[in-house]
Amino acid sequence: MNWLDDIRWDEQGLVPVIAQEASTGDVLMFAWMNREALARTAEIGEAVYWSRSRSRLWHKGEESGHIQKVLDIRLDCDNDVVLLKIEQLGHEPGIACHTGRHSCFFQRHEGDQWVAVDPVLKDPERIYK
Amino acid sequence: MNWLDDIRWDEQGLVPVIAQEASTGDVLMFAWMNREALARTAEIGEAVYWSRSRSRLWHKGEESGHIQKVLDIRLDCDNDVVLLKIEQLGHEPGIACHTGRHSCFFQRHEGDQWVAVDPVLKDPERIYK
Repeated sequence: MNWLDDIRWDEQGLVPVIAQEASTGDVLMFAWMNREALARTAEIGEAVYWSRSRSRLWHKGEESGHIQKVLDIRLDCDNDVVLLKIEQLGHEPGIACHTGRHSCFFQRHEGDQWVAVDPVLKDPERIYK
Repeated sequence: MNWLDDIRWDEQGLVPVIAQEASTGDVLMFAWMNREALARTAEIGEAVYWSRSRSRLWHKGEESGHIQKVLDIRLDCDNDVVLLKIEQLGHEPGIACHTGRHSCFFQRHEGDQWVAVDPVLKDPERIYK
């Protein structure tokens, strides 16, 4: 029995993945994995996602250097969502978002709008150079 | 301009939602919302999801009493994932999972299998009676 067979992959063969920083508890990002991505993640101990926009494996940090070291892999009660506990490498404090912010969830609902409330830690032009 | 229009709803009109306990940082569950569910969540300050299995609005806790009080609503950089910071009501410590556990993410990847590592806090037969 393979642990990858226990997962209820969706009709595209994907599973949603939440990346949470282990040290702070901060939810840093959300992405998708296919079977190969999750197998690779477990094998190398670094987050490898499936890029739906580019239709290829995406070793997080391959361009930015913002690698995610995987400390723990969790599966939910319905076997269809994965939670990674990670250490966000490459910058201090960690940068997971392509906008140069710590977390992708930097927009807060306030009244009838979304307000960007978290600072840019590094200019994206300097990240992706 | 309506803040709900800023969200990139998927082809089914849904957005993935992560519920995180504000006090502990624990990721408790993952679910989906449609436009009406998110509007209602903001209106009443309690999590209302869209149940894909039952095809109806699902006011979390309506049967179990395990209501989620919403403290903060966040949106990610791509405008297609929502993060709720919540207080999990109805039991101490909070129970978000239908299995009677604190979090839905109680299965840990160990070797070639998933191991349930978190305790059942309340028998589901006593929750859904």
